[in-house]
Amino acid sequence: MKKIDLLAVAYLLATVPGTAVAQEAIGEIVQSASPIINDDHTVTFRLKKMSGSDPFIEGSFTTGPVKMNYDSVQGEFVYRTPKPLEPQLYTYRFVVDGLGVADPGNIHQLRDVSFINNYFIIRDGSGERGELFSVNEVPHGTVSATWYHSDALGRDRRMNIYFPPGYEKSEMRYPVLYLLHGTGGDENAWVELGRAPEIFDNLIARGEMTPAIVVMPNGVIDTDAAPGYGPAGLSAPVTRTENWMNGRFDMMFPEIVRFIDSTYRTEATADTRAIAGLSMGGFNAMNISRQYPDMFSWVGLFSAAMLDRARGDNEIFRDEESKLKRQMSGPLKLYWIGIGDQDFLYEQNAAYRDRLDRLGFRYEYHESGMGHQWINWRDYLVIFARKIFKK
Amino acid sequence: MKKIDLLAVAYLLATVPGTAVAQEAIGEIVQSASPIINDDHTVTFRLKKMSGSDPFIEGSFTTGPVKMNYDSVQGEFVYRTPKPLEPQLYTYRFVVDGLGVADPGNIHQLRDVSFINNYFIIRDGSGERGELFSVNEVPHGTVSATWYHSDALGRDRRMNIYFPPGYEKSEMRYPVLYLLHGTGGDENAWVELGRAPEIFDNLIARGEMTPAIVVMPNGVIDTDAAPGYGPAGLSAPVTRTENWMNGRFDMMFPEIVRFIDSTYRTEATADTRAIAGLSMGGFNAMNISRQYPDMFSWVGLFSAAMLDRARGDNEIFRDEESKLKRQMSGPLKLYWIGIGDQDFLYEQNAAYRDRLDRLGFRYEYHESGMGHQWINWRDYLVIFARKIFKK
Repeated sequence: MKKIDLLAVAYLLATVPGTAVAQEAIGEIVQSASPIINDDHTVTFRLKKMSGSDPFIEGSFTTGPVKMNYDSVQGEFVYRTPKPLEPQLYTYRFVVDGLGVADPGNIHQLRDVSFINNYFIIRDGSGERGELFSVNEVPHGTVSATWYHSDALGRDRRMNIYFPPGYEKSEMRYPVLYLLHGTGGDENAWVELGRAPEIFDNLIARGEMTPAIVVMPNGVIDTDAAPGYGPAGLSAPVTRTENWMNGRFDMMFPEIVRFIDSTYRTEATADTRAIAGLSMGGFNAMNISRQYPDMFSWVGLFSAAMLDRARGDNEIFRDEESKLKRQMSGPLKLYWIGIGDQDFLYEQNAAYRDRLDRLGFRYEYHESGMGHQWINWRDYLVIFARKIFKK
Repeated sequence: MKKIDLLAVAYLLATVPGTAVAQEAIGEIVQSASPIINDDHTVTFRLKKMSGSDPFIEGSFTTGPVKMNYDSVQGEFVYRTPKPLEPQLYTYRFVVDGLGVADPGNIHQLRDVSFINNYFIIRDGSGERGELFSVNEVPHGTVSATWYHSDALGRDRRMNIYFPPGYEKSEMRYPVLYLLHGTGGDENAWVELGRAPEIFDNLIARGEMTPAIVVMPNGVIDTDAAPGYGPAGLSAPVTRTENWMNGRFDMMFPEIVRFIDSTYRTEATADTRAIAGLSMGGFNAMNISRQYPDMFSWVGLFSAAMLDRARGDNEIFRDEESKLKRQMSGPLKLYWIGIGDQDFLYEQNAAYRDRLDRLGFRYEYHESGMGHQWINWRDYLVIFARKIFKK
């Protein structure tokens, strides 16, 4: 009996927050479970602290930071949302004595550039948003972190690839969606914040998306991988680089397509190839699909950064108008533009649509509420994924 | 110009900690970079806070929590290690007003059961430890999160698989190492805390390890995936379950081997199959290799939990002695046992070795310093990986 008890104790030491550190010495507090999603879909957050000023909570469901209330009975600070929350993925953190800190009751976190936030999901059985962003009991695709050799850069670079359920056991060929991140993001952004694997699993299980391989490369060519995953090491800064939106990544994009088509069972035609991206990734998708008009039939610009002029003197920014005309007369089947009415890029997008209109370039336009944020990009991905690769 | 400036501002908002929240309202502090690895391999940690008690730091390089000193010139709390640190991966966190908090200057974190700690790596060019745990400019394998169907449980379950560099482009078959996590861990533990992909990439690049597929399944059969990755959802507790170390996972293990051999290009022989695990995973490796003696030629028990008796009445715990005799006369080539001299399982391991000695069961024994911790398990993996699949 003694031996198994020892192991149980070690287990408990490792699982109860606050017990693995010398509790006497620093008085670390055993935290309450947080957040609690109440039956009415209000959400309660709880935090114990010993000293200092009152904590705040700020999240995608608050308007700025909100002070938490002290519950003297429970001896903890509490915040309950004043209203039920809609089905959605929400992020938040606490602010304690000027420090942004994670909820010690919640191990679920997502990194957004240099912020690490907690998250939770509200789901309501409607099948949308919260449901789509959750892991459900459906067949799951495979998510692979894979390295490819960039001949253009002479280095290996990292990408994430989603393979639809059944890929490994089938002999089928699949269409491919190339899905690009924004400034400050990396190849992990769509997998983590974007909930892309969950969205694809769920849509495919319902027959609402054509099963596809989804390639999520790293669009920052001065780094080779997300922070911590590349040879640049752990002290590599999370910053904009020399080659930020200057067209170099866009020009060399075909080497990624060649790598994918030569390595996996793809349907290597324009009709079975899509490209989409958010913010900077929308800029990339716009440039790449215009420069290589026979490569993609399906294009998605999600809150795209549509710069009017080249940063630097790159081939990709020359003769844009004639290239757009070439693109509209090619294999293009869908040119989808989504933007939030509060997005700081709204006017840029309106000007770009005017330009397309003048050319007679056909596109689908989706205007949502809100601004430049993941709540919109996840929705745009859902809408776009339901449309692509249809006959 | 105006448009690109807008985007630059948005970028900065997203990358400078503290500016994306309403700074006026709560006074969140812009943090200094931390940690700083000094040239002499001492390490400096810096933390700004506004109020409350003085913060502590605790890490794998401290003996319990240590109070940080206030530097009134810089207006920040500072801790500098009194001595240079040896090459290694180190974890740490701050304790602020009774809360364990992440270093806001360091986005690199690792989850260990229900703790989330920051980490950093000291490397010295020696080629060991710090070097082996880092991503270097060498060919990288692929890490896949893959789901398999468990016939025994009637559910899909998640595993991580490492494919050696070149797997996708080759037609070779590869040996397979099954690598198991401990209690409270999951299929992500070896990938994240264990630095297994980095270790394999580096050893393979130097010719010190036979290129192999490495399968890291989830050994907690009441859950199907790591917290947040399975249909149990985000509020699934990180706890020991009903089926904790009761032999059920061990008995059904051949279905995992069948899935791997039928899905990937494996060399499906005992000589090209290894199994190893830490703590509970060592218990599993011991049980599975004894129960299925013709399956594995290479066995590694890392700080194994060697319970003398069955938890529950499972077939796997019956006739252990005759099964061990059967195992020692089978295709076994290496039975490797590693334990730290401070490990709370040290005596269990000594008793188990006595038992093997009495049977004339040959094994290799490695006794390290320290206790039941990842610093040992990473080292054991390096030692074991260098030995397996040799002719």
